[in-house]
Amino acid sequence: MGAAKFLRGLVKRIPPERLTVIVNTGDDENFYGLHVSPDVDTVTYTLAGLVNPGHGWGLKDDTFAALNALARFYGKPWFNLGDRDLATHLYRTERLRAGESLSRVTALIAKRLGVRSEILPMSDDRVHTWVKVRGRAAMPFQEYFVRNRSRGAVEGIELRGIEDARPLPAALSALRRASAVILAPSNPFVSLGPILALKGMRQALAKIRPRVAAISPIVGGRTLKGPADKMLRGLGLEVSPLGVARLYRDIVGVFVMDIRDKDYLEPVRALGMRAVAVDTIMTTPAKAARLAGIVLNTLPV
Amino acid sequence: MGAAKFLRGLVKRIPPERLTVIVNTGDDENFYGLHVSPDVDTVTYTLAGLVNPGHGWGLKDDTFAALNALARFYGKPWFNLGDRDLATHLYRTERLRAGESLSRVTALIAKRLGVRSEILPMSDDRVHTWVKVRGRAAMPFQEYFVRNRSRGAVEGIELRGIEDARPLPAALSALRRASAVILAPSNPFVSLGPILALKGMRQALAKIRPRVAAISPIVGGRTLKGPADKMLRGLGLEVSPLGVARLYRDIVGVFVMDIRDKDYLEPVRALGMRAVAVDTIMTTPAKAARLAGIVLNTLPV
Repeated sequence: MGAAKFLRGLVKRIPPERLTVIVNTGDDENFYGLHVSPDVDTVTYTLAGLVNPGHGWGLKDDTFAALNALARFYGKPWFNLGDRDLATHLYRTERLRAGESLSRVTALIAKRLGVRSEILPMSDDRVHTWVKVRGRAAMPFQEYFVRNRSRGAVEGIELRGIEDARPLPAALSALRRASAVILAPSNPFVSLGPILALKGMRQALAKIRPRVAAISPIVGGRTLKGPADKMLRGLGLEVSPLGVARLYRDIVGVFVMDIRDKDYLEPVRALGMRAVAVDTIMTTPAKAARLAGIVLNTLPV
Repeated sequence: MGAAKFLRGLVKRIPPERLTVIVNTGDDENFYGLHVSPDVDTVTYTLAGLVNPGHGWGLKDDTFAALNALARFYGKPWFNLGDRDLATHLYRTERLRAGESLSRVTALIAKRLGVRSEILPMSDDRVHTWVKVRGRAAMPFQEYFVRNRSRGAVEGIELRGIEDARPLPAALSALRRASAVILAPSNPFVSLGPILALKGMRQALAKIRPRVAAISPIVGGRTLKGPADKMLRGLGLEVSPLGVARLYRDIVGVFVMDIRDKDYLEPVRALGMRAVAVDTIMTTPAKAARLAGIVLNTLPV
């Protein structure tokens, strides 16, 4: 998750208290009767300093005794849930069933884990991302991404429930108040896509467009991780920073691409954006912090 | 749990396939949004050979990572749920929410864990045992027993929901078909009590009274484990095999007491029961098997 790496750098450049993260919930899934919010948890664990650095998801030093025991009842698991991680899902599920909103539970979890930034699920309503791959019926995102390891040619992405979902009011007001907004180098379709597809979200960003930056998840013609390149290709779009920039034309003022893609600077500028090319590869926390600093410098913070 | 120790011995004397266990669900409890059935699980784990022999509950070699992590959200836990044990509760809860009955889920769990006997929860309806202790409001059984370590003078036991609960039809028909029925050396109020209080249960046993044996949980004026002695005392009953036998007068044909209580043989016989006094202390599986053999021999099996 490029977003998590970037956030880890960002909180080295700004006080964590000043950061609000609006997080995709389209790939939330029910496992074993538990409400699992993979993106919210990755952001929370990352900002809490608890994320498993090897995986980029889950908690460090977690064990998998419960999951192994669940195999007796459900067969071999394909989605990893650690024992300590389970506590988060148990708490979330129990609170949601008691009538709490996802945003409230997310805030409680973040607080208990010592996160000082604000983490907002994009909506308290259920949006469910499905992926249609050639020759197969549409499947929920986690099934496509984790179980099937993003195999197959993507023919479509469906955001079920998006028409009726309301963006979190706190997210919209955070955007209004923000001195700067950064779209992380995330998948434009399944990570940023659901957030941007919520009613009123693009309009809110369009109003503050000069303060909005985006970082290309495509570097040298492919993604470092995840299926954004396959999705661009499958949907007939250009697999390049330009292909991504076109998706954000109406809402992004500054487009940040990797230095090796600098040939795209002019085409992106032709879309009416400011554009910069820098080293965007976040192999270390220091490099992530440097990238965050550069992006912040492009904005009127 | 005297019942678990006894069952471990019983399946050394009869083929496990011939055994049906009717189990109390009055001390089922909701923890962290999960439906926990402590008695059912102890019986299941015992018959599967998976029970933690030190505790008499839970799974052997289990770990507690999830429980420790739950403390972040709920505070210090007072009811132990191991990581592998959690898988059972997750499966049960998920299946119940999907509309399965507790008896069906119990059978599925037993099957997956390799149990060859039939384990029947006493009812698919919810009965909830509450205990009233002097100077305190009534509390659910687990809170009394585990959280408060059975402290305080018992003033009453309440079986909430018992009026509307139907005994499991399979339990009643198992009683009708049984060549022998044994009431384990369990707590007469909170373990056997809820089962016997179900509509039609005492009548079903009364009809086969000569084939029904009971083993006294009171030995030498006290229980080996658990609060049965305190409860007898608190409710103004005699803390002796005779005090227990009186509770079963209408339904038990053979009463088994410990050899050190042999002075109670005559008073129990005066209740119209056959009575035997033997060594009932099950310190080893071999001793439990020996006791089971003796009890079976008292019955027309």
